Amino acid sequence: MDRLHRFPEQGVADRAALDGLLDSQWVGVLACVVDGCPLAVPMLYARDGDRLLLHGSTGAGALREVAAGAPAVLTVIALDALVVAPTTFESSVNYRSATVRGPLETLDDEARAVALDTFSEVLVPGRTAEVRPSNRKELAATLALSLPIRPGGWLLKVAADWPATPAEADAAEDVWSGLVPVRTVLDPPVPAPWATGLPVPESVRRLTGPDDA
Amino acid sequence: MDRLHRFPEQGVADRAALDGLLDSQWVGVLACVVDGCPLAVPMLYARDGDRLLLHGSTGAGALREVAAGAPAVLTVIALDALVVAPTTFESSVNYRSATVRGPLETLDDEARAVALDTFSEVLVPGRTAEVRPSNRKELAATLALSLPIRPGGWLLKVAADWPATPAEADAAEDVWSGLVPVRTVLDPPVPAPWATGLPVPESVRRLTGPDDA
Repeated sequence: MDRLHRFPEQGVADRAALDGLLDSQWVGVLACVVDGCPLAVPMLYARDGDRLLLHGSTGAGALREVAAGAPAVLTVIALDALVVAPTTFESSVNYRSATVRGPLETLDDEARAVALDTFSEVLVPGRTAEVRPSNRKELAATLALSLPIRPGGWLLKVAADWPATPAEADAAEDVWSGLVPVRTVLDPPVPAPWATGLPVPESVRRLTGPDDA
Repeated sequence: MDRLHRFPEQGVADRAALDGLLDSQWVGVLACVVDGCPLAVPMLYARDGDRLLLHGSTGAGALREVAAGAPAVLTVIALDALVVAPTTFESSVNYRSATVRGPLETLDDEARAVALDTFSEVLVPGRTAEVRPSNRKELAATLALSLPIRPGGWLLKVAADWPATPAEADAAEDVWSGLVPVRTVLDPPVPAPWATGLPVPESVRRLTGPDDA
């Protein structure tokens, strides 16, 4: 808990902290504008160096919008704790959030094949070596987009704070306050009904292994 | 795992399922449009029957935009499992996501006082009885918004599926596939440094107690 310090939520200009958040999550919300209204779609993403890879069906409406160059922003959130303060007014959550702004780039055939393998490797490292390569039909059915992480193109916000003190909150001294940490855990893998007789592969074991605890 | 069935992600017109998702999470992404570009902000929310309560500082830019009647959409996601298929193409995640569309209503003074207590009660049931009421200054500094959950105003998407079978994926029979369940857990409460001598209150104990396991 020694990273905690008393300050309100704030922007953090630390690229490593941004990467840390992005790499700790799987899903974000991609928002774009269609006919003047906000359109928001949950998206899997994978960070590959200075870009975020997104993919989906070539039939997906929102993806086609952003692929066509519409301004877009991907938001990723990690909730770290409920902040139970000595007053309701001061109660809050500790969280990290990142917004990464477009424009997105549509990847062409060659770049797409590489990107989809990278995508898989980021999510489940080692998996691509355990399965057959994607075939032409699969690649043709997939839209792959790249969202560059550019200086000035992202915003990281971090709230990592103890609750307000009783004095700060104008509250009684004997009201408990503190944090309730929130954590995302991966449970042991569950084989598909037709795979119960097969050993759990190395890639999946590493995901939930002691290294990730 | 008996709720799993083989179908692609799809819209679910089940209000109870929507409420179940909304009540299981704390944070969403509020998206609106500013100067033709999407603006996305992570937001705490609390469901109160047929509305979602949002709140923030009266100084928050995005909130003022949506308070002024800009179209807005709140997106909430729960990631339930990594879906490790016999091919990278079929690999995916199981998740539930909800989008709830505005317009938002700004709550006036009287409604705001009630809404902020409700907000606190939804997040940490029982907490308002353990702390002093919000005072006039606190209420004046808070913007409270209500996002109605209207028929036709929300969309729930659920992907809850086993991976594609080897036959469906055109893959070898001996490639393991299955799910890696993802879960959000609340860890035991951590008292603030000045509250270590105080008993953990009932409201906080209930949050992390056996009833929530």
